[in-house]
Amino acid sequence: MSNIESFFNPKSVAVIGASANMDSISGRPIRYMQEHGYQGEIYPINPKYDEIAGLKCYKSILDIPGDVDQALVAVNFKLVMKTLNECVQKGVKHALVFSSGFAESGEEGKKVQDEIVELSKKTGLRVLGPNCQGMVNLIDHIPCSFSASLEIQPALKGSVGFVTQSGALGYSIFNLAQETGVGFSYVVSTGNEVDLNSVDFIEYLVENENTSMIITYTEDVKDGKRFKKVTERALELGKPIVCIKVGSSEVGQKAAASHTAALTGSDTPYQTLFNQRGIIRVDEIQDAINFAVMMERIKKIPEDTNLGVITTSGGAGILLADKAEEYNLKLPELDQKTREVVEENIPVYGSSLNPVDVTAQVINEPDNFKNVLQVMANNPGIDGIVIVISMIYGASGATMAKCIVEMKEKTDTPIIVTWPAGDRLMKDNFDILTEGYIPWYKSPEQAVKTLGSAMKYGKLRKKVAGYKKLADIKANKEVLQAIDAKDRYSEHDAKEILDKYGLPITREKVVNSSEEAVQYASELGFPVVLKIDSPDILHKTEVGALKLNLNSAQEVEDAYNTIMQNVKKHKPDASLNGILVQEMVKGGKEMIVGINESRFGPMVMVGLGGIFVEVLKDVSYRIAPFTREEGLQMLEELKGYKILTGVRGEEPSDIESLVDMLVKMGQFAFEFEDKISELDINPVMVMPKGKGVKIADALISK
Amino acid sequence: MSNIESFFNPKSVAVIGASANMDSISGRPIRYMQEHGYQGEIYPINPKYDEIAGLKCYKSILDIPGDVDQALVAVNFKLVMKTLNECVQKGVKHALVFSSGFAESGEEGKKVQDEIVELSKKTGLRVLGPNCQGMVNLIDHIPCSFSASLEIQPALKGSVGFVTQSGALGYSIFNLAQETGVGFSYVVSTGNEVDLNSVDFIEYLVENENTSMIITYTEDVKDGKRFKKVTERALELGKPIVCIKVGSSEVGQKAAASHTAALTGSDTPYQTLFNQRGIIRVDEIQDAINFAVMMERIKKIPEDTNLGVITTSGGAGILLADKAEEYNLKLPELDQKTREVVEENIPVYGSSLNPVDVTAQVINEPDNFKNVLQVMANNPGIDGIVIVISMIYGASGATMAKCIVEMKEKTDTPIIVTWPAGDRLMKDNFDILTEGYIPWYKSPEQAVKTLGSAMKYGKLRKKVAGYKKLADIKANKEVLQAIDAKDRYSEHDAKEILDKYGLPITREKVVNSSEEAVQYASELGFPVVLKIDSPDILHKTEVGALKLNLNSAQEVEDAYNTIMQNVKKHKPDASLNGILVQEMVKGGKEMIVGINESRFGPMVMVGLGGIFVEVLKDVSYRIAPFTREEGLQMLEELKGYKILTGVRGEEPSDIESLVDMLVKMGQFAFEFEDKISELDINPVMVMPKGKGVKIADALISK
Repeated sequence: MSNIESFFNPKSVAVIGASANMDSISGRPIRYMQEHGYQGEIYPINPKYDEIAGLKCYKSILDIPGDVDQALVAVNFKLVMKTLNECVQKGVKHALVFSSGFAESGEEGKKVQDEIVELSKKTGLRVLGPNCQGMVNLIDHIPCSFSASLEIQPALKGSVGFVTQSGALGYSIFNLAQETGVGFSYVVSTGNEVDLNSVDFIEYLVENENTSMIITYTEDVKDGKRFKKVTERALELGKPIVCIKVGSSEVGQKAAASHTAALTGSDTPYQTLFNQRGIIRVDEIQDAINFAVMMERIKKIPEDTNLGVITTSGGAGILLADKAEEYNLKLPELDQKTREVVEENIPVYGSSLNPVDVTAQVINEPDNFKNVLQVMANNPGIDGIVIVISMIYGASGATMAKCIVEMKEKTDTPIIVTWPAGDRLMKDNFDILTEGYIPWYKSPEQAVKTLGSAMKYGKLRKKVAGYKKLADIKANKEVLQAIDAKDRYSEHDAKEILDKYGLPITREKVVNSSEEAVQYASELGFPVVLKIDSPDILHKTEVGALKLNLNSAQEVEDAYNTIMQNVKKHKPDASLNGILVQEMVKGGKEMIVGINESRFGPMVMVGLGGIFVEVLKDVSYRIAPFTREEGLQMLEELKGYKILTGVRGEEPSDIESLVDMLVKMGQFAFEFEDKISELDINPVMVMPKGKGVKIADALISK
Repeated sequence: MSNIESFFNPKSVAVIGASANMDSISGRPIRYMQEHGYQGEIYPINPKYDEIAGLKCYKSILDIPGDVDQALVAVNFKLVMKTLNECVQKGVKHALVFSSGFAESGEEGKKVQDEIVELSKKTGLRVLGPNCQGMVNLIDHIPCSFSASLEIQPALKGSVGFVTQSGALGYSIFNLAQETGVGFSYVVSTGNEVDLNSVDFIEYLVENENTSMIITYTEDVKDGKRFKKVTERALELGKPIVCIKVGSSEVGQKAAASHTAALTGSDTPYQTLFNQRGIIRVDEIQDAINFAVMMERIKKIPEDTNLGVITTSGGAGILLADKAEEYNLKLPELDQKTREVVEENIPVYGSSLNPVDVTAQVINEPDNFKNVLQVMANNPGIDGIVIVISMIYGASGATMAKCIVEMKEKTDTPIIVTWPAGDRLMKDNFDILTEGYIPWYKSPEQAVKTLGSAMKYGKLRKKVAGYKKLADIKANKEVLQAIDAKDRYSEHDAKEILDKYGLPITREKVVNSSEEAVQYASELGFPVVLKIDSPDILHKTEVGALKLNLNSAQEVEDAYNTIMQNVKKHKPDASLNGILVQEMVKGGKEMIVGINESRFGPMVMVGLGGIFVEVLKDVSYRIAPFTREEGLQMLEELKGYKILTGVRGEEPSDIESLVDMLVKMGQFAFEFEDKISELDINPVMVMPKGKGVKIADALISK
């Protein structure tokens, strides 16, 4: 049994600080275990009582005769350390600490929290929390939590795993989802994550056979690189991760720090990873629940974004078409043959475009509706269908609902229903859909959004193969030596490293006299650039150590001397390699490329030079490594992308070569992530199509 | 009684094509009128029956002895014209045509629809629809509709007016809203709008004393300029208009055309008007319902965007903080005194930042919650409060709910509750809030969004005064003469008109010889620009009729001759005023300003020149006229706005003068909207701060 598997399956549970009030926080877990049918041993611990809820109550965990797998710790903050020490003594495997008052409260709490970390590391006691609400294993009826959501019985068993960093909100979501009909496999609230953290659980659930998708409420991810691997595996297995990621705002970040002491950091790496790994980031809690409803009820995830809409209300059709565009879904026009079948089955004032408007006339002709649905579901150009039903109630509504349930048997195409109406009028018909395992929503917009999320996820998944190859990079020995050779790099040092890795740099040479400079300049051909080459001078322009567009031997000689004088004046202590003589690259577009560390490993950034980066912050990112396709997408995401394809009759730029470079940069970043913390290329010159790219300046930091 | 007032209050209603099946579309209206307690006369008309639902049934409307105010027309498409003619003969005031098959079906239907238009115009018979679902007057129990939403009885009377262009979706929304507890005053479905249109009804509801807010489902607005006035009046009266505007996507526009034959057109004018007039455009149907729930329950609309959050779940607090930022709300930090009170009432692991995290500890100390709520509600720096309650159920939850209801008596500050939990556990507590008239939502995100919409609306409303003054412009006689003097304008003609209006143009003169050109150029000082001045040559560069940066008499003379030769060659038939000699403006930023017609009257557009307009489509709009504040906002909305405030150490531009110009352009556009269809200024040069702006090229079209 793995660590997490045994965490979810304790044979015996001690409740330390147990209350005789079965409605209190330290009484409820006992009651819930009993009510939900837990089959293991329950040991209440409280020196004040002999018996609680018909169970023998112990003064201390050390008095229990048998083994204790799990301890639920619900004692006052001040008693937590003593309690945990006793758990260690007893040989408890997992302690779930419900108590609050730790890092989220300030210095004193932080100190005790650090002591827990140390104890756990030293003794091997695995700790969940503190400041958490425990776990529920719904598969095996094991509720080790005090959340009032467990009042609703029986709990609905299903295939959704849920990992939440907020206990209160997390179990609210669980409760809402359960009432919406979503079944869960395992739920865990991780609190301050001193030991066991979200990634441990997500990793387990991704491989767990009872679990087909995972919801997370996430303030921060403690173990980013492992999380990245877990998300790759989840994508490979086709288990969607739906993430409610909070802390993107400044105020939100402050609130997170005072809540579970989480440091959420910048949102960019999260959004970048989510995009790359198909993690479904939701705007609203309801979106996560909606997605879970769908996942549990459809036969397969659609693999592309061609949406078919069938509506009894033309107005709703327009609304859905707008939403589909907003979510980047396609509403393909139907082929002639399909349209003919549709037209035979709708009145003249309907529409055989997509959205197909069957009109409320279907009330009178239920077979027509069936025929339209069938021809749409069998159309290979449609990856999923949303059906909108408006105020069609009673027997007419029931007939439509049954028809949809029947169609489900005959097709793998996901069919989602939206029926914007109240329960008083429609409950019976809603029940037909629920019992027929059809995902349905009152909100038309949410129906499109939910199916759309699955469509985009499925489309991305088809492209997953590329990742693996890229991750299998062998360290390049020569490059490694060049990196290890120095602690700090001059521009030319940096470019040499890139050159050895096969990245395209300018023709250039470091020289140590004006004669040598003139000679190499003539070799290169004019114009040339001269700049100081020193690991100590990063901003060359500011100290007059950069001269562009030198057109003659005389200009080169003058520039050499001027630069030397300026450097001696402004940076007398700088260590100098000499002066770099470099070809002057003309006729390209300036771009900026960079590598930065993030919690998920190195991230490559690209942007157009000038106002695009400076004024518009127009940059895009990918976590390294990434595929050529992702490299191209990275460019396409730029607002100024058209500059590269050519505007105002300009030649298109060499996008192919730029993508090659980006992908190689991603490989480089991934391969040397432990060696290099930052790389700035500013600029790289992107030449016209077919003429390549040239790195004109580079800066590497260890 | 106004036309619309009598429309909503018929003393007698004939149902033409009445069915004896009281569940059918032409039977239901009779049943609904009876069930909902309509007090007027009901006349079923159908030659097949003598009696329907206990009422005498007539063979023809002409057989009815008394007056008939309103006719519900539910006959086959082919019989509609005959029926309407009989309505005219009978002196019916309003005909509500439920029948479909008109412009939404194609040519044949369009023809009959045109006949209805003609009949209505000729005879004064007012027509609703066709292809509509009628109206409901909830104030006086008059349901003239066949919508199944009327099965839910009694209908909930209230202060929300609803105007929908989609019958099926509209009444779905009505049904959903009613079940959520929203009361309505009047509901009307306008269908194809051959006569009575949405604006007629919105105009009425804005002034109607039973109505405090209006929801619309809108595909297109037929009478844009009147709609603009109505929205001004609504803003003045403080009656929010919540608009579900569809047809923004291309596919949506096609679907609208085939639905109610609506041509929705570009979304830009709508979004622009909505922004200027505080029309609350919602993303989802649910947003409209949420807003209505709030409006019916709060005492006053907040007037600024300072949000206070009180939460029992730290996690939910972070979520709300993120959402607040997304919706541009402020979460002000609390003052020291407030924080002290808060801290006295929360545990150490809570938070006295805003969001205030009172933690689930409030279960044990309900007075603490009351104290926190009170100090927040009384804080003048807080315009509205969202309270988040998580899994707090039973008596503890009830205590909190009651505390909130009590606080409502003591404060005008809107208090909104979000309680993300299911009905099975929480229904009793939810009922306390509903009965206490507290707006509450299960979705935390929707709670913030809803209150945020009201906050932004209230903030905008405070600024409304400026509009009126601007609308009172007196036509400028001299300008009017200049406009009327010609049918087509050359560049200089256009600039003269703008100059007369007080807009700043370049120094320039039209000359007719190279000598004159040279002489005027010397007066101006070099460099100068020469270009052809002709109403027939719009693209001067393409025909070699524009020469920039001329630095000497010789260059001017050469340019003069070259331009003349080029024009003779490429545009031999063009009518020429001469050659325009113009100062060459240097050192400014190029911008583009334009005036275009829209359905809401002329709209002013502004953008930065070059890639900003061409590549990034970075432009912003205002419907004319508009205030200085709006003119500045217009610039601030540009992605490249920083270019004007100064980047890379550049001087800031003369934003003041640019705003002056924009506002004046708005006045000009509004004043001469019947005379001018288009104006393009490209470029206007914006000089450094204090140095003004200069219109360097202009094109006016009638």
